[in-house]
Amino acid sequence: MKKLRTGIVGLGRLGRIHAANIAYKIPNMTLVAACSLVPEELEYAKAELGVTEVYSDYRQMLAEADIEAVVIITPSGEHCWQIAAALDAGKHVFCEKPLGVDVEQCKIAEAAVERHPDLTFMLGFMRRYDKSYAYAKQKIDAGEIGTPYLVKATGVDPEVLVQNAIRISAGSGGIFLDMAIHDIDLMRWFLGCEATEVYAMGATFKHPEFKQSDDDETAVAAYKFENGAMGIVHVGRTAPYGYHVETEIVGTEGSIRISAVPEKNLAQLYNTNGVCTECVQGFPERFADAYLAEMEEFANCALEGRQPGVSVYDGSRSTLIGYATTEAWKTGKIVKIG
Amino acid sequence: MKKLRTGIVGLGRLGRIHAANIAYKIPNMTLVAACSLVPEELEYAKAELGVTEVYSDYRQMLAEADIEAVVIITPSGEHCWQIAAALDAGKHVFCEKPLGVDVEQCKIAEAAVERHPDLTFMLGFMRRYDKSYAYAKQKIDAGEIGTPYLVKATGVDPEVLVQNAIRISAGSGGIFLDMAIHDIDLMRWFLGCEATEVYAMGATFKHPEFKQSDDDETAVAAYKFENGAMGIVHVGRTAPYGYHVETEIVGTEGSIRISAVPEKNLAQLYNTNGVCTECVQGFPERFADAYLAEMEEFANCALEGRQPGVSVYDGSRSTLIGYATTEAWKTGKIVKIG
Amino acid sequence: MKKLRTGIVGLGRLGRIHAANIAYKIPNMTLVAACSLVPEELEYAKAELGVTEVYSDYRQMLAEADIEAVVIITPSGEHCWQIAAALDAGKHVFCEKPLGVDVEQCKIAEAAVERHPDLTFMLGFMRRYDKSYAYAKQKIDAGEIGTPYLVKATGVDPEVLVQNAIRISAGSGGIFLDMAIHDIDLMRWFLGCEATEVYAMGATFKHPEFKQSDDDETAVAAYKFENGAMGIVHVGRTAPYGYHVETEIVGTEGSIRISAVPEKNLAQLYNTNGVCTECVQGFPERFADAYLAEMEEFANCALEGRQPGVSVYDGSRSTLIGYATTEAWKTGKIVKIG
Amino acid sequence: MKKLRTGIVGLGRLGRIHAANIAYKIPNMTLVAACSLVPEELEYAKAELGVTEVYSDYRQMLAEADIEAVVIITPSGEHCWQIAAALDAGKHVFCEKPLGVDVEQCKIAEAAVERHPDLTFMLGFMRRYDKSYAYAKQKIDAGEIGTPYLVKATGVDPEVLVQNAIRISAGSGGIFLDMAIHDIDLMRWFLGCEATEVYAMGATFKHPEFKQSDDDETAVAAYKFENGAMGIVHVGRTAPYGYHVETEIVGTEGSIRISAVPEKNLAQLYNTNGVCTECVQGFPERFADAYLAEMEEFANCALEGRQPGVSVYDGSRSTLIGYATTEAWKTGKIVKIG
Repeated sequence: MKKLRTGIVGLGRLGRIHAANIAYKIPNMTLVAACSLVPEELEYAKAELGVTEVYSDYRQMLAEADIEAVVIITPSGEHCWQIAAALDAGKHVFCEKPLGVDVEQCKIAEAAVERHPDLTFMLGFMRRYDKSYAYAKQKIDAGEIGTPYLVKATGVDPEVLVQNAIRISAGSGGIFLDMAIHDIDLMRWFLGCEATEVYAMGATFKHPEFKQSDDDETAVAAYKFENGAMGIVHVGRTAPYGYHVETEIVGTEGSIRISAVPEKNLAQLYNTNGVCTECVQGFPERFADAYLAEMEEFANCALEGRQPGVSVYDGSRSTLIGYATTEAWKTGKIVKIG
Repeated sequence: MKKLRTGIVGLGRLGRIHAANIAYKIPNMTLVAACSLVPEELEYAKAELGVTEVYSDYRQMLAEADIEAVVIITPSGEHCWQIAAALDAGKHVFCEKPLGVDVEQCKIAEAAVERHPDLTFMLGFMRRYDKSYAYAKQKIDAGEIGTPYLVKATGVDPEVLVQNAIRISAGSGGIFLDMAIHDIDLMRWFLGCEATEVYAMGATFKHPEFKQSDDDETAVAAYKFENGAMGIVHVGRTAPYGYHVETEIVGTEGSIRISAVPEKNLAQLYNTNGVCTECVQGFPERFADAYLAEMEEFANCALEGRQPGVSVYDGSRSTLIGYATTEAWKTGKIVKIG
Repeated sequence: MKKLRTGIVGLGRLGRIHAANIAYKIPNMTLVAACSLVPEELEYAKAELGVTEVYSDYRQMLAEADIEAVVIITPSGEHCWQIAAALDAGKHVFCEKPLGVDVEQCKIAEAAVERHPDLTFMLGFMRRYDKSYAYAKQKIDAGEIGTPYLVKATGVDPEVLVQNAIRISAGSGGIFLDMAIHDIDLMRWFLGCEATEVYAMGATFKHPEFKQSDDDETAVAAYKFENGAMGIVHVGRTAPYGYHVETEIVGTEGSIRISAVPEKNLAQLYNTNGVCTECVQGFPERFADAYLAEMEEFANCALEGRQPGVSVYDGSRSTLIGYATTEAWKTGKIVKIG
Repeated sequence: MKKLRTGIVGLGRLGRIHAANIAYKIPNMTLVAACSLVPEELEYAKAELGVTEVYSDYRQMLAEADIEAVVIITPSGEHCWQIAAALDAGKHVFCEKPLGVDVEQCKIAEAAVERHPDLTFMLGFMRRYDKSYAYAKQKIDAGEIGTPYLVKATGVDPEVLVQNAIRISAGSGGIFLDMAIHDIDLMRWFLGCEATEVYAMGATFKHPEFKQSDDDETAVAAYKFENGAMGIVHVGRTAPYGYHVETEIVGTEGSIRISAVPEKNLAQLYNTNGVCTECVQGFPERFADAYLAEMEEFANCALEGRQPGVSVYDGSRSTLIGYATTEAWKTGKIVKIG
């Protein structure tokens, strides 16, 4: 079996999830190289993942490592130049979302992808590879709900993680850029259409620290789409019950709702609280399989010379919409999306 | 509009539910007379229900009251002779379940019903009139699950009422006669067939007081039916979450399950316990509408000269099966049902 | 028992539901008089409801009928003057929602209510009396979800009724005035606060006839509230599965969601479609108990000299918000709510 | 990282699932050798799994292959001697359920395990490693439902696979030995106690072919346990909606129910059938993660010199109970379990 020789850059929390998947769970990938500015992360790669080539310089890894593909899990601001550098070095590229932190950066990535149509580029919109979301998309494509015309998306992080959210709030670009990118991508994907206008608002009732970073604890945005369809996104950081990602797609002949109860597993407790379902407590738990499935698709695409369903333009367009949403939220005005 | 002039005998907890329904909620019934050995109950009938004729002697009510129908909500041991007396006095009769406390008594009721085919007789198997159960029966009769061949029934009282259950345990005839009559009737109704054999067992893990009355806290019975179908009944008295009546009917083309979550209402709480649904806390809450619907059907039958779907034989057969189940449970043996 | 002698005006579809409840299901009310411009409706009242006094002139009923209370179920444009006339005639008044069709009319009703503080006035926001909504409010008031700061409301009529919706669309004032009044009232009730700003949009993907009446099939509105809380309302007229009223209240310590699955009853079918729950098919089915409960509360208030939880200002404020929402939807602009 | 060098015997449907897990998804296992009587299976192992050493003779594999562990996925009748041979050859052993096809065989396996306390032996009761079942066990061990005293287990295969079930029926040992072993193990595990008596019955309403093999389509058994607890098992082969494995554990302080709706994923369809959840279609789909998790545990145990939670006695005891259940079903009598 042909195996895709892969290097990873970035071995933080999410990087380690991807690295372990590549090293141990995807038959046709081999984790050959790792790059990080943090020495401990490189030690980890050698000791736990069996990586033999480690680098502290990304360009050096591209130049020297015996790899065909690069997986980028670095801070968002580094994504676009790293994408361009890897593609220009002839490597297939998988990059974690978001594509970039502004539209100009995204253009750099777009241009690089366009320069190398023979290389596979994939952006980590992993929800598309979650079995529930993939099932919904398949049902929609099969016409089972007619024409979809409204998406209602919810994404709320668990209260147990709120102190971390407060800590990173100041540099996060605000709640929409930090949290709504997946929902924005899903709206576009399900509706098959681009957003043209957004109205947004936020609220902070529990942790005033968010206000100190000019951020909000919870926020809502409403979108109009080119074909007349509509979208609503509700993001938040303080769900007492867990990690709540829910999406409803309303169509002319039916609706699909994903994860109204963000169940941890299939058990229900019948006790003095009633009948209770415990919830997942974060994205690693909820989307463990999706992280694996997207990387399998990346490997298959690279080995078969295909492009995946998620393109670089999905990344740049979502970033554009994220910025417009942020502007609407900050100004209190309706913002047209260019 | 023609109204059915009605007398009630027995004004305990359940009697008052029926009496209030007749007095205030059923357009074509009028509560004219009430009979009880308890003076306070008669005072209640006059003060709260507007009853004008009250009696402490049942036969006197039958002889003197200006009524066309009698509703019997007395202790089970009184049912059969009161049924016969009322029918012989030319009254339509509604009687609360069970029909009688032994098969001999049931025969008395059967004979009385047979003597008066022109009078309406109805037994209070109110679950048949619950909208969920009626819906299930309608789906089954429409063939939606093919041939039903297995019923799995659950009926557990809430732990909050357990002290009362302990108190009445000694005189109750045991857990099956006390609690399983509705489930037995439903199995027969859904399967359209009679039980021929039963095996049963019980357990007491929480309240040893039940053992002192030679009773059990929880019990299970398994039934064979004439046509080869099967039934399982699980009854108990100690559900911490509420009143749990659940029934599953398995057929060749599908299944119907009623009330896997015995929800109190349509609200769900998302909190640190997960996603929780509070449960109903007793039969008056769960079956309030069914008590009303069965009495409406009784009135309509009496006024239209019809017999309802529940016959006297449903009562006697269920009592017979209840006794066989009790024997199986007490002896630990398989019991054939005559 | 004291009974509230009542006259009803308007005996259309909803009027008949109220009339039957008053006549037969509420112990302390008597339906004495009925008023309608439609002779058949008066015949119905006499024949089916036992009403003895019928009128084609509303003012004549107020002047002549032996009644203490009036129940108004007429077209919305008639509500306010009929409220004023009844109060001025010394009658307690129950009026179906909405209070009026414009803010000026509402002022007439407000003034009349203020002139007669001794008379009970109640507006038919019956959802507040639905057991699930009442339960949610009670939990919120008990602090179980902390401070509520976001309400997400859904109200979609069933596709099976869409031809009627198309027919009345032109004169309905548009989808928000026609359908969102209950949701607007619930947002205010749950958040305990007034809306200050609204953004709205609509879409028509299935039935272009709505566009011909300058209306929409589906619409969404987003609200800001005085205290910083937020609200989202999604209304529509084309749910293939039934009548979908869902409300989620998000608070600092938890959420409550009502009716994510608008189940018809407690039965679930397990068949080749999977595990399916059939849905309610309209407001009379979904809110039958709420219509009864609100009228019971009206009777009790009138007989006990109390005012109910729903005031005339709830009606006028909801109408004001409904108009602002409509303006936002029609203009595509953010509208401040005065 | 130390990797457990492993050989597999048997590469049928389930064998391939295990083999692929070992080869690609478990970091600390390596699939070195494979044994099968079917040449195509050995070709498969070389081509798809990268196995270098293939054998048609099991004893030869034990003697020659460079392996520390053996995974046995052969027909049930081969399990016990293969277990003994592998242990006697100094290999750790994982064996698919059931342990053996009769109690005598099980004794051979027990003796071999006892001879080699230093080697890890694990039986494939994979449900114990499913996250929902593991969660339930953890809650029970933490005392959250008090003392468990009743298990209600359901295991029904999908109708889509029924022709295969009919085909293998004659040699399967009957529905209980074929299908109830997992449920029997789970009852023992959750109750922490042994069964002492069983009553059973079966029914065939859809596919009379089962009767021709002296088998049944559906069957029910009721168990008494040493400590007075009770168990009910319902197995079948004809669920139109999919693969239905459901388990309820009832305790003195609460209940846990696993998978009342055997959902395929987290999506729900709202359409003219109501609100529908599609179901899983077989054990590979339902228990994919459990197959992986149990093998991870086996590898960890072997490498760390531990024994897993499932012992050889769990296998022999479950087989004993399976036989007693079969006898009860065939004879129609209560059977004591030795």
